[in-house]
Amino acid sequence: MTSIDLNADLGEGFGRWRLTDDEQLLSVVTSANVACGFHAGDAATMRRVCELAAERGVRIGAQVSYRDLAGFGRRAMDVPSAELAAEVAYQIGALEVFARAAGSRVAYVKPHGALYNRVVHDEEQAAAVVDGVLLADAALPVLGLPGSHLLDLAGKAGLPVVTEAFADRAYTDAGTLVPRTLDGAVVTDPEAVVERSLALARSGEVSSHSGTRIEVRARSLCLHGDTPGAVELAHRVRERLETSGIRVEAFA
Amino acid sequence: MTSIDLNADLGEGFGRWRLTDDEQLLSVVTSANVACGFHAGDAATMRRVCELAAERGVRIGAQVSYRDLAGFGRRAMDVPSAELAAEVAYQIGALEVFARAAGSRVAYVKPHGALYNRVVHDEEQAAAVVDGVLLADAALPVLGLPGSHLLDLAGKAGLPVVTEAFADRAYTDAGTLVPRTLDGAVVTDPEAVVERSLALARSGEVSSHSGTRIEVRARSLCLHGDTPGAVELAHRVRERLETSGIRVEAFA
Amino acid sequence: MTSIDLNADLGEGFGRWRLTDDEQLLSVVTSANVACGFHAGDAATMRRVCELAAERGVRIGAQVSYRDLAGFGRRAMDVPSAELAAEVAYQIGALEVFARAAGSRVAYVKPHGALYNRVVHDEEQAAAVVDGVLLADAALPVLGLPGSHLLDLAGKAGLPVVTEAFADRAYTDAGTLVPRTLDGAVVTDPEAVVERSLALARSGEVSSHSGTRIEVRARSLCLHGDTPGAVELAHRVRERLETSGIRVEAFA
Amino acid sequence: MTSIDLNADLGEGFGRWRLTDDEQLLSVVTSANVACGFHAGDAATMRRVCELAAERGVRIGAQVSYRDLAGFGRRAMDVPSAELAAEVAYQIGALEVFARAAGSRVAYVKPHGALYNRVVHDEEQAAAVVDGVLLADAALPVLGLPGSHLLDLAGKAGLPVVTEAFADRAYTDAGTLVPRTLDGAVVTDPEAVVERSLALARSGEVSSHSGTRIEVRARSLCLHGDTPGAVELAHRVRERLETSGIRVEAFA
Repeated sequence: MTSIDLNADLGEGFGRWRLTDDEQLLSVVTSANVACGFHAGDAATMRRVCELAAERGVRIGAQVSYRDLAGFGRRAMDVPSAELAAEVAYQIGALEVFARAAGSRVAYVKPHGALYNRVVHDEEQAAAVVDGVLLADAALPVLGLPGSHLLDLAGKAGLPVVTEAFADRAYTDAGTLVPRTLDGAVVTDPEAVVERSLALARSGEVSSHSGTRIEVRARSLCLHGDTPGAVELAHRVRERLETSGIRVEAFA
Repeated sequence: MTSIDLNADLGEGFGRWRLTDDEQLLSVVTSANVACGFHAGDAATMRRVCELAAERGVRIGAQVSYRDLAGFGRRAMDVPSAELAAEVAYQIGALEVFARAAGSRVAYVKPHGALYNRVVHDEEQAAAVVDGVLLADAALPVLGLPGSHLLDLAGKAGLPVVTEAFADRAYTDAGTLVPRTLDGAVVTDPEAVVERSLALARSGEVSSHSGTRIEVRARSLCLHGDTPGAVELAHRVRERLETSGIRVEAFA
Repeated sequence: MTSIDLNADLGEGFGRWRLTDDEQLLSVVTSANVACGFHAGDAATMRRVCELAAERGVRIGAQVSYRDLAGFGRRAMDVPSAELAAEVAYQIGALEVFARAAGSRVAYVKPHGALYNRVVHDEEQAAAVVDGVLLADAALPVLGLPGSHLLDLAGKAGLPVVTEAFADRAYTDAGTLVPRTLDGAVVTDPEAVVERSLALARSGEVSSHSGTRIEVRARSLCLHGDTPGAVELAHRVRERLETSGIRVEAFA
Repeated sequence: MTSIDLNADLGEGFGRWRLTDDEQLLSVVTSANVACGFHAGDAATMRRVCELAAERGVRIGAQVSYRDLAGFGRRAMDVPSAELAAEVAYQIGALEVFARAAGSRVAYVKPHGALYNRVVHDEEQAAAVVDGVLLADAALPVLGLPGSHLLDLAGKAGLPVVTEAFADRAYTDAGTLVPRTLDGAVVTDPEAVVERSLALARSGEVSSHSGTRIEVRARSLCLHGDTPGAVELAHRVRERLETSGIRVEAFA
């Protein structure tokens, strides 16, 4: 029997502001990418999300980011390696306190936003993120895009790597994501998202942008929780997976 | 043979800015109060200070603060308890990563600046700081002022408490610090500071502002490192203590 | 014919986060208290709100705050006077650029949140806010609570003062606001809010918490826009005022 | 008689931290690039520097930056154009309050650090900075590198442009700066800096890295104030210029 992990970003408010419906998302996902204060995520929110995640048996991951509240971590930054590594470790450590206090642990690391995109192709920043993870815990899995420098370097450094796929994003024939600036980059039809989720989980295959059948091997599917209807769609994805005999569970 | 701990604030720069001479101070003190990013202390500096402290066998403490870079943590803030507790835990966790990576541990917590002063008399914020420490580690010593709500509540919560005294501050007959707004609050004569350090370490007694001999029991002496001549004075204090048969060592 | 000004807080998002429905509120109020970046309000939002306000003939005010994004400016801070004055002026100047670019002007200043409450009774901070306003523009009206130190000192400094009242807050017999910590501090029944608005605008009289008829002279009514149903309630208030022969217009 | 402007970065502390010797620099330069709070420069410092500059007849410029206190504005950021334009205008407006309060005006704009370097070759960000300046004041001069997209676009938009040169930086034969990553990029010999300053001011010609005589037309020379000996060197440069018959004065 095949199994798949479902991950989503949580705790992405800050102080007075809320963004993600953390309660709802925690009833769908098996892995929670918790914002650690650099792009979102104040300390009280981090604590609350960790408590809820622990209660429900959802795995806690550190969603590390550039230091950029004003830009929500979506603006690429040329951060020197030593600073970036230290900032990644800082965020993991801060989250670890709340995960442990809730009886859980930080179980993986996933970069956020512009940092996520940057470490796909920027070897220097990818290496800095890996250094930051190693500073915090030399056995911490890293979640990212198959073929990225991040996963490549994490693997070489002895860190477990976990690949993820996006059911609501179009893929090129080469198996990379179609850039958001191009038409059709985002799959907006809910039924299509549900079907692509099932295909990715069951066969590791999906239709590319051009209609070719391509392979996208992923141990986790990333769901989005910050748009209207997103939580409902996430529930539908999970239901379809389960009724199709896919076990939805956190990666080993 | 009597022993005393010497503590000082370290790592109080931020990014491009430097304040404390961390290298020099680490050759004098036995406990380093490391800034954790809320009033000062970027991640790369925290890492470096932890590495140096570990190398030299200096104990690492989390110098937790209000979130206030612009005011260097010197402006009292009415932070709700839940937020304050979470922010204290966040800072401890962030520092713990660097302490562990350097082969050491966060060995105590000391509030900084306005928070330090506030928790002397504000029971609610003192309780929040204690909650924050408990979230991080239920066996973590708290360093503070004798008679403060902070130490009182920390003790009641089962946390080890460590008292400290200030050789360069005048005391009232009641054993509290003379407020900085009053004349003579700060002892500026270096020789007087050295002698008061010795008196505090040897007998736990010192002359009050009015000339009365009072008791100030402290397990640690706080040295200042951010003024001209401060490092040299710290060296003189340590030398006088050692040549007088006082063992300078971290608290147990 | 009697007239009244309606003011509300606008532009209180930050980066990715939104809070106030600025478009909707600008169709109701005559004065917009625009967040200036210290508790909320990124630069792009400030620009957009100023453009919309100018288009619709809504007056632009600088909603100045403590520097506290994490606490949304709701945490009182002991900011030294020189810093507070400079920070107030800084915020006014930043907003002025966008107001002028939109063909308008910053027409008044209103402190936000904890600063608003603090300058009711804290003479030192009230004086610092007045100094900050004077630095920016010696003829800029100040909007605040009748009887507050802020309005008192602003008036003595030659600044125009504008009083405001809250239709959704209970008043004591002495005409001050019932603290939010007490039961019944907030009037939650929409119809009651509408009726109190009319009473305040027409006669400057309203029922106190104890049922006594008291006088609350105010040139402006403050509406809230950040709760569910708030915008609709604001529309009802405005409609009731207008159908009752009250002219809704910005203060002179 | 030839004249030259001398500019330097000022007010680059933040809160408790100091960097530049503002008093000393203001006795040398004719144009002060004042930090506006995004990479450095708290409001109280901005006020004080403006007062000192106005007293001494030194021209005040807005040294605008990416929002990056932790990186001192030295980390390039992919900021969307609308945000960058608004942030530039915000900073200019904030500084304008203090310049006016001191009886002066913001007389020019100069980008700082990574933004300065980025707008040399990044047309989109250069256009955004120009938009920001236009929002604030359609007649505000822009100070920058000859041949940069920034000056090119500023000129096309009708803004006055002022070119600057660096006496302590090596130039390529093409007249661009030798990147700091290459050997010999920075001229460290004080006497050489003084002589190059004179050459740049008198003839607009200087020796390139390869020894060729090249033309570098600049209306202003940028002096650095944040390194040991920098202020003394700045004084020597000014003295040599003046004794050589060059008039040191702000650009027209």
